[in-house]
Amino acid sequence: MKKFFRCFSHLQEVKDSHISFFRSILPSTSIETEDLSTYTSDWLKVHKGSSKLVLKPTTTDQVSEILKYCNLERLGLVPQSGNTSQVGGAVPVQNEIILSMKNLNKILDLDDIQGIVWCEAGVILENLMKFVGKKGWMIPLDLGSKGSCMIGGNVATNAGGLRYIRYGSLNGNVLGLEVVIPSGEILSDLKALRKDNTGLNLKQLFIGSEGILGVITKVALLLPPKPSSMQLAFLGCTSYEKVVKALTSAKASLGEILSAFEFIDSQTMEIILKRIPRTRYPLASPHNFYILIETSGSHSESDKEKMEHFLESAVESNLITDGVVAQDTSQSENFWRIREGGLLALRQEAVDLHQFDFSLRIPEMYNFVEVVREKVGNAGKVTAYGHVGDGNLHMYVLGDGKNNLENLIYPFLYEEIERRNGSISAEHGIGLFKQGLIGYTKSETNIKYMKAVKDVFDPRGIMNPFKIF
Amino acid sequence: MKKFFRCFSHLQEVKDSHISFFRSILPSTSIETEDLSTYTSDWLKVHKGSSKLVLKPTTTDQVSEILKYCNLERLGLVPQSGNTSQVGGAVPVQNEIILSMKNLNKILDLDDIQGIVWCEAGVILENLMKFVGKKGWMIPLDLGSKGSCMIGGNVATNAGGLRYIRYGSLNGNVLGLEVVIPSGEILSDLKALRKDNTGLNLKQLFIGSEGILGVITKVALLLPPKPSSMQLAFLGCTSYEKVVKALTSAKASLGEILSAFEFIDSQTMEIILKRIPRTRYPLASPHNFYILIETSGSHSESDKEKMEHFLESAVESNLITDGVVAQDTSQSENFWRIREGGLLALRQEAVDLHQFDFSLRIPEMYNFVEVVREKVGNAGKVTAYGHVGDGNLHMYVLGDGKNNLENLIYPFLYEEIERRNGSISAEHGIGLFKQGLIGYTKSETNIKYMKAVKDVFDPRGIMNPFKIF
Repeated sequence: MKKFFRCFSHLQEVKDSHISFFRSILPSTSIETEDLSTYTSDWLKVHKGSSKLVLKPTTTDQVSEILKYCNLERLGLVPQSGNTSQVGGAVPVQNEIILSMKNLNKILDLDDIQGIVWCEAGVILENLMKFVGKKGWMIPLDLGSKGSCMIGGNVATNAGGLRYIRYGSLNGNVLGLEVVIPSGEILSDLKALRKDNTGLNLKQLFIGSEGILGVITKVALLLPPKPSSMQLAFLGCTSYEKVVKALTSAKASLGEILSAFEFIDSQTMEIILKRIPRTRYPLASPHNFYILIETSGSHSESDKEKMEHFLESAVESNLITDGVVAQDTSQSENFWRIREGGLLALRQEAVDLHQFDFSLRIPEMYNFVEVVREKVGNAGKVTAYGHVGDGNLHMYVLGDGKNNLENLIYPFLYEEIERRNGSISAEHGIGLFKQGLIGYTKSETNIKYMKAVKDVFDPRGIMNPFKIF
Repeated sequence: MKKFFRCFSHLQEVKDSHISFFRSILPSTSIETEDLSTYTSDWLKVHKGSSKLVLKPTTTDQVSEILKYCNLERLGLVPQSGNTSQVGGAVPVQNEIILSMKNLNKILDLDDIQGIVWCEAGVILENLMKFVGKKGWMIPLDLGSKGSCMIGGNVATNAGGLRYIRYGSLNGNVLGLEVVIPSGEILSDLKALRKDNTGLNLKQLFIGSEGILGVITKVALLLPPKPSSMQLAFLGCTSYEKVVKALTSAKASLGEILSAFEFIDSQTMEIILKRIPRTRYPLASPHNFYILIETSGSHSESDKEKMEHFLESAVESNLITDGVVAQDTSQSENFWRIREGGLLALRQEAVDLHQFDFSLRIPEMYNFVEVVREKVGNAGKVTAYGHVGDGNLHMYVLGDGKNNLENLIYPFLYEEIERRNGSISAEHGIGLFKQGLIGYTKSETNIKYMKAVKDVFDPRGIMNPFKIF
């Protein structure tokens, strides 16, 4: 399924006069024109674009001036945070200007009673985690890319990640945003009140908007208290059906302390152990499926009791065949290293890697993987892991470069997801990679009104062009 | 502060020819034209409007036909669920047609693995609670009006209520909506996937939109597992400062099992005990402030231990002076009867009742009440209770009808909320009552874009006219 991007003629090329204008409103350290390769390619190195200009504003007012000018001059603009998008969401396509958020990186305030943090959009997720952690709070979001992704990008892409099953989506956790729209106007809604029913909730539109409406410059985020007790168990199952039953059982036994329910199939596990340094197989013998269960709670003793009770009953009812609870931080780290090493291992293994991020009803998720596996046959390898507790699996088709996998899997695979009422993008978004494919998940009417809403904020189509639609 | 509603001339009056059209597309049982008084006044009997026609469709397609016709003919339309709005949000002003959702009341499906219920918008909240309760789940929302309010109305007004501190807003819990917009088009997003990052999240716009964009016809809602152990404690404090400290302490000690932290001041308590039958004072002696704490968990023993530990430490550190844990259902019911009886008691007590529903930073919430109390002086009584754990208080100014309270409190009170960066409507919305006041909470730019977004969906201004703006 080759896609040819339409060449949009509504945008101007960046000229010297434009660069001169930016030099007049920004300090020289906020402008880059040489060697922009780290900005113009995504971190997977799949999408390579081009740009002549990177702007790195340090204030919201600068962002406002930049957007206003780009809007008047019809210059395309790509907001870029940590550039960790897995769908090429922050890559320029036709020499758009890159608006890097890396210099808007101040943590502004923390409300210690409600648990709310205010910060600029360019704060790196891990830095924010450490900051609030010291004060007894946690960020309700954890991602493998936490060391480089930024909170503004997380919000703009509605990032999901590992603890979604417990803390839910950013739609519930983002209490306030400051956003600059192409007119240069600033939509500021940073009061961060837990309850505020005054008119339409515009900030929700920007959560997951992938930068096509405006630029998020500040974020206010609700924080859960940092748990004082955490446990991690690695389990082995013989069938996916048992994985699903173990999920139901874990929800019932662990209730409010369940904070992750992750899944790895044996095909992925094998490649991880081969490719990722310092990973050790945690169980006595190989299994078809693995589960990683995490609990986070406030009372260590009762949490441990609950975990023991769950494990005992899961073994007794034959849902799991083997299981081990991490005894210390180093074992925990090994378990998470396995789970988080998936993508890196698969990228090293395959010459030709096709990556999918879908949502389906939980009971049929792995059946879908098996259907794809059958379709692919000997032409490639199909593996999966992910957030099974949220109905979200990451599936990969690995080729050795000798077979044309594309003809085999596209559009069959997307059609199958559509037929099963799933989503073709659970948490990675549409970006450039899945541009034009949104119709497999959303109706024509829905897409028509998405475009109409985009026109309200970005009538001249300058924001992150060539993405989503 | 008198407000005169603008007379909108863009809408047509309902004529016989219109009624004939509706008779041609709806069964006669879906049309009412006689004695519409239960529909034209809000349940507080504060706002009385008029209407010649109530339509009670039974299918989404009927809703679509109605909206399309009203849009073509420029007929104003007020969606109405349980009509329990406290801001006159569902009252017709100038003979608009009332679209009653009461016949769209089917519960459609339940996903027993993820915990998701699908239903039509007119299902009464309490009926939905009972249905999912039987299957081991709960609705992440509880309101005093649960016996008559409907889930579609709850979503359209982003209802908050008693357990918000635990389960958060409907922005996080609504997984899918079916909505009909004035063009007659149906925006259907009912897959109810926990994760789905495909384009702009339009359904979020309808949560809390108060019926000004379209009509919600179906809802998919995420359900937490029904807790197997619940506890309720009634506490007495000497100062508001101690209430805030008790909140911090409760969050730390009770962690993930804390499911309500409600507050009543002594002024409200006195009136409740006088006015509400079957309420008994739960403590040994009167206090200045009362707290109602609820926990919901999955393990009764450890939950009890946590509550005991919290209470002991709160007494030791002198945060609470007295406290009692409900020993049985009847005592629990008494405690909740006190808390939920507030509005009814105050309405009976006052000749002239002014009702406020504000959000402020938690430490200064009651100081605001005291400032208003000082301003009102002997002209009236000021009382407050509410969801202090969420930064949301319901405040009332009670008059005996002899003093002009309006001049004293308006606009001073809204100006003071604005100055303190709060919200003039935490959970009750804007509706008719606070029409034109949204500027105290939201910026001009924000309001301008709310109106632009409304124009996308309702360009002819037929949906719930005269509300919010």
